[in-house]
Amino acid sequence: MEFERLYSPAARRLKPSIIRALLSLVREGGVISLAGGTPDSNLFDLELYSEIAARVAREEGRSCLQYGETQGYLPLREQLCRYLEGRGLKVGPDRVLVTTGSQQAIDLLCRLFLGPGDSVAMEEPGYLGAINGFRNLGSAIVPLPLADEEGLHPAAVEAALDSRPGPAPKLLYLTPTFQNPTGRCLGPERRRALARLAARRGMLLVEDDPYAEISFDGPPPRPISADDPEGCCLYLGSFSKMSVPGLRLGWAAGPPEVIRAMTLAKESADICTSVLSQAVGAEFLRGGHLAASLPRLVSAYRSRRDTLHKALLRNLPRGSRLGRAGGGFFLWAELPAGLDTMDLFQSAVEAKVAYVPGAPFYPIEGSGRGAMRLSFCAVEEARLEEGARRLGELLERALTAGSRNPSSGVPA
Amino acid sequence: MEFERLYSPAARRLKPSIIRALLSLVREGGVISLAGGTPDSNLFDLELYSEIAARVAREEGRSCLQYGETQGYLPLREQLCRYLEGRGLKVGPDRVLVTTGSQQAIDLLCRLFLGPGDSVAMEEPGYLGAINGFRNLGSAIVPLPLADEEGLHPAAVEAALDSRPGPAPKLLYLTPTFQNPTGRCLGPERRRALARLAARRGMLLVEDDPYAEISFDGPPPRPISADDPEGCCLYLGSFSKMSVPGLRLGWAAGPPEVIRAMTLAKESADICTSVLSQAVGAEFLRGGHLAASLPRLVSAYRSRRDTLHKALLRNLPRGSRLGRAGGGFFLWAELPAGLDTMDLFQSAVEAKVAYVPGAPFYPIEGSGRGAMRLSFCAVEEARLEEGARRLGELLERALTAGSRNPSSGVPA
Repeated sequence: MEFERLYSPAARRLKPSIIRALLSLVREGGVISLAGGTPDSNLFDLELYSEIAARVAREEGRSCLQYGETQGYLPLREQLCRYLEGRGLKVGPDRVLVTTGSQQAIDLLCRLFLGPGDSVAMEEPGYLGAINGFRNLGSAIVPLPLADEEGLHPAAVEAALDSRPGPAPKLLYLTPTFQNPTGRCLGPERRRALARLAARRGMLLVEDDPYAEISFDGPPPRPISADDPEGCCLYLGSFSKMSVPGLRLGWAAGPPEVIRAMTLAKESADICTSVLSQAVGAEFLRGGHLAASLPRLVSAYRSRRDTLHKALLRNLPRGSRLGRAGGGFFLWAELPAGLDTMDLFQSAVEAKVAYVPGAPFYPIEGSGRGAMRLSFCAVEEARLEEGARRLGELLERALTAGSRNPSSGVPA
Repeated sequence: MEFERLYSPAARRLKPSIIRALLSLVREGGVISLAGGTPDSNLFDLELYSEIAARVAREEGRSCLQYGETQGYLPLREQLCRYLEGRGLKVGPDRVLVTTGSQQAIDLLCRLFLGPGDSVAMEEPGYLGAINGFRNLGSAIVPLPLADEEGLHPAAVEAALDSRPGPAPKLLYLTPTFQNPTGRCLGPERRRALARLAARRGMLLVEDDPYAEISFDGPPPRPISADDPEGCCLYLGSFSKMSVPGLRLGWAAGPPEVIRAMTLAKESADICTSVLSQAVGAEFLRGGHLAASLPRLVSAYRSRRDTLHKALLRNLPRGSRLGRAGGGFFLWAELPAGLDTMDLFQSAVEAKVAYVPGAPFYPIEGSGRGAMRLSFCAVEEARLEEGARRLGELLERALTAGSRNPSSGVPA
């Protein structure tokens, strides 16, 4: 039988992630993939997680193998509060919701706030998972172009919001720290200005912060949500980058009424997040394993960032602009006019190197075709160098072969 | 700041589960709760799960601590196919989707198929989590009254669907086996008739089957989905009752296009289910631990069912109707006219016994006030007897005190 005829309007809007589709092309042998966004599983401390999982199942199994509270396993919420306090964010366990990865937090926010006719403002380029979530609900996205290496400029955000007709966006969704895809980090002054702006305009500022702990030049920056006298910031965090993604643990911390409403929405979404995962996460924090494991992780990623950055500086065509990324997993390159990273993707795979084209990170279709995201997180250093070499060669060839697409260009 | 003004229509429809609210009243000391619906954690084999969790993290950690496929960890999908084959359902891993508990499968179906103006047909009384999910999206529910101890009568279903004005319901949602809340089990003839009915009417028959393995009188009945030549059945299963709920593992198996669309919807819901949980579930099945542990589980629950059933027969007021439940966790009692189980709940808690009133299980408000769900799954036998005694006393008192509510009555 055929069921598509029964699908709801929301279902008809669903589109597969372009990145996942691209990544499936990259599996073939010999391709050096700078396209991935997943942490390097060779850096996972399997013995540690094995020991923790065994212990929590044995000692807390009557709780952590049973149904749990929708809001989250209390020992985990308590540990998260301690962790957040270290980041400058003071909240009690009643103001924290554990989610099945950060993606679920975004999804719950979409359900609570968005529908056709609503809008949300976010960075351009910005996180693809958020763009898809917002789009799936038929909401409009107000793009806020990143101004420079310090990210958004508050005056430009103000202007973009003012110039837009219709009702104000409900959410201001930001990934201020080592952003995916650009690696950029919003400066401290701008952070405070954007919190004030959200408060003044009655928007919920959603601070999505999965990469903060992968910080290459000192401790992670203070979250926007740590300076939020008006209570208009919701902080989203995740174990996926600082610990392991397979636990599927994220969390939201912020205004009590938003946490309550998200909890209610989560109840009919999945009742609760894997309690076994939550107990493992709680024990990982309680035992001090985050602090103990981060230096090794950060040092490995920093060294790869350095290697890829240097190699790209040597290999990208003259006129390219390359960010440096003070943390996170990604470098962002803007190429000279005439190069279309979407068109070039197939040739890149043939040349045994892969990246993610810039376009999917732009909420407005047709933008970003001159940019690419390059990931250093899960590739060993010799291969990063060779990948950059192959990429440089390909781009030079494309430039000289004149395979130019007049409609493309570097984003402003 | 205050954010409720920004909520979407869908968010305004969200209501907390009545059962969870009731259960919070029951926590005080001395109350014998026949209200719970969670398995007895004293029956969990903590050493087994501890050993499995340690092993999969150590041996498969590079996969099961990493991001996983949205459709589910392949070793788990393969094991599920083997398990389902034993139940008579032949599907390949491409036709199985792993979900974060069965509740997520219901939620994904809601997103795919339902919106305001749509409708879904389901048993009355029926599963509360489904009622809430359908309601949250603003869909109408077409109630299909259970005819007798064998559940729905196909001719009555046909009549209920025919008599309804407007577009046909998109989904026929059924919990045919040891249903929550009634414990009833749909007979084999009726199963086949309902599959034919769904096919004829172009509805997707959703067979939600979490209790099948808790079968007291022989092997579980053959799923409706096992005899589905038209491909119009989607089978939902869960680890929560036959293994442990804290893993949050459910699955859907059925028509490829529906599985594909659900997978797409899951991608923006939570990317994937806890991969650690999935690896534990896969190993639980692969190692034969399901088959090895079920006899002990079923025997414990059967004995409790027997005890509660006998004690209720002795203690419920004359004129009550009590189901026997061939499996699952629940008995269902319909009380003599004049007793309102919602009104009596507070006095029951004062008399140190708790149940779940029937009303929440009825999609149509105001129905079911003469019924109650009584759970035997997580209470030791001496307490089951004492609980039944307290309940009987309370109901007799209520009958003679004439605390009658003329608007209530036993459902037809």
